[in-house]
Amino acid sequence: MLTLTQTAEFLQSRDNFLILTHRAPDGDTLGSAAGLCLGLRALGKAAYVAPNAEIGDRFRPFTEKLFPPNSASFATTVIVDTASTQLIPKSLREYEPSIELSIDHHPNGGAFAPNYIADQSCAATGELVYLLLQELNVTINAEMAEPLYVALATDTGCFKYENTTGRTLRVAADLKDTGLETSAINTALFDTKTFSRLALEAALLSDVELLRGGRVAIMYLTKEKMAAAGATEDDTDGLSGLARQIQGVEVGVLLREQDDEDGQQVTRLSVRTGPRFNAGAICSKFGGGGHKRAAGSTLAADFDYARDLILNAI
Amino acid sequence: MLTLTQTAEFLQSRDNFLILTHRAPDGDTLGSAAGLCLGLRALGKAAYVAPNAEIGDRFRPFTEKLFPPNSASFATTVIVDTASTQLIPKSLREYEPSIELSIDHHPNGGAFAPNYIADQSCAATGELVYLLLQELNVTINAEMAEPLYVALATDTGCFKYENTTGRTLRVAADLKDTGLETSAINTALFDTKTFSRLALEAALLSDVELLRGGRVAIMYLTKEKMAAAGATEDDTDGLSGLARQIQGVEVGVLLREQDDEDGQQVTRLSVRTGPRFNAGAICSKFGGGGHKRAAGSTLAADFDYARDLILNAI
Repeated sequence: MLTLTQTAEFLQSRDNFLILTHRAPDGDTLGSAAGLCLGLRALGKAAYVAPNAEIGDRFRPFTEKLFPPNSASFATTVIVDTASTQLIPKSLREYEPSIELSIDHHPNGGAFAPNYIADQSCAATGELVYLLLQELNVTINAEMAEPLYVALATDTGCFKYENTTGRTLRVAADLKDTGLETSAINTALFDTKTFSRLALEAALLSDVELLRGGRVAIMYLTKEKMAAAGATEDDTDGLSGLARQIQGVEVGVLLREQDDEDGQQVTRLSVRTGPRFNAGAICSKFGGGGHKRAAGSTLAADFDYARDLILNAI
Repeated sequence: MLTLTQTAEFLQSRDNFLILTHRAPDGDTLGSAAGLCLGLRALGKAAYVAPNAEIGDRFRPFTEKLFPPNSASFATTVIVDTASTQLIPKSLREYEPSIELSIDHHPNGGAFAPNYIADQSCAATGELVYLLLQELNVTINAEMAEPLYVALATDTGCFKYENTTGRTLRVAADLKDTGLETSAINTALFDTKTFSRLALEAALLSDVELLRGGRVAIMYLTKEKMAAAGATEDDTDGLSGLARQIQGVEVGVLLREQDDEDGQQVTRLSVRTGPRFNAGAICSKFGGGGHKRAAGSTLAADFDYARDLILNAI
């Protein structure tokens, strides 16, 4: 694993960069890529963000403008915020063999690359990119600050989550001091929901089950509710946190009706827990996994059976 | 108006403090009072937080322990985060004549006091208290940091709102660096809702009206919905932001059925706007007022009539 200084030296010694992002790209991977790209350009280098086919509308403005022209050729391929090769999107698979450097903040993330830095002390890969640009003596301007702020805010839930450190907040302060307007970004990221999403939340709340003295909440996401709300996959993002938000609930469960690849009906399980329960341990009983506070699995079972299994596991 | 240095000198020159907070006390007034109280104690002074009768469960742990014993007497009464005397709670009215210093961040807030500082550059009064404690060379420990962080997080929506500056984020970083665990505080402040609150949100979403091509959303809070959800006044706090959260909505309106003091039915109007509309200007047409993005008024009208009036005003 490279140190911060070694990574900066590597970047300084190269040119003609193509920067890759992960599958289902979020604010951290895209913001880190755009921030790094602009930082390298400020050093007089050629750099582009690879055109990940799945970029959402919200992140398009600061990434699309950095896509390479058709004529571009690349000498150095870098990947950001991508822990393993399985997370490389189909649309960028062709670049996998040429990856020379991975920049990541997941535990040992990007170890598949010949050169990699995986700094877990960073709340977001965007924080690590900021530290690298500092090391490279890049003066951060508001244009670079925007994607880096998006990266930080995305991975910390706007500085709400446990991963936020004093340094994270100081990096955000430095980005803010470039003149960046953060409130519009925050509104778009955290305070805007589609009408379908809100309708879906209302439908889930209409028949949520509170069990074990209100410490366990189970929500049922049926195909019918999805259709009635006119909801898309995007509208289900982070929905499993809703049950956990109810006061007193320590284990929030979302059960979702889904078809597997063979058309068999299965139940997708998502679990979110407070400090006293381990979501990963609960889901590992069903062949799933994840983190302490958030985990999931898929069960070849209907809702009733899935419900019983989970209540036993808890 | 006092400068920061003059305010610090005033605090340094006095002793036996009683610190007052405002009506319907929020995280900023209570966090500022508790942080200031602990900071003054660190200087070897006697200081207490006045027992505001309306303190909610969420803020009790760090305020109640600072209430004065029955035997206490006070030489210096300070009030925090309280722009005008109308905001002094009934339970603390007796101390109004003895107020010597007001510490506030509202425009010209606390000018009623013989000595006052009103620093609008601070996102929260808690930020100003932090600056004062720095000026007084108090070493901030985790116990002081907790209420000051609550103050900052409350008034900035966890650093989401426009009032957040680079300095606000740096103060938060300093507080965090005392060893303060902020994620549990953030979960309690921002990611916990009563079941009644969630049921109320679901009921409001069930018949929200989207008008003017989806740019205006009107929600109807009836007494019936309140009763069906088993909701209390606490559950309605900030509810008017819900309509504004819908993607594409620039003006979010909440109409609420209420009885006035004479038992007449009135409609309470709350308006939240995006950058292109002025909520204060809309509400001022109905004798109400507020800020650019958030304002309210009360109309002697039923829902249908109130709805027409507001649509015309927008």
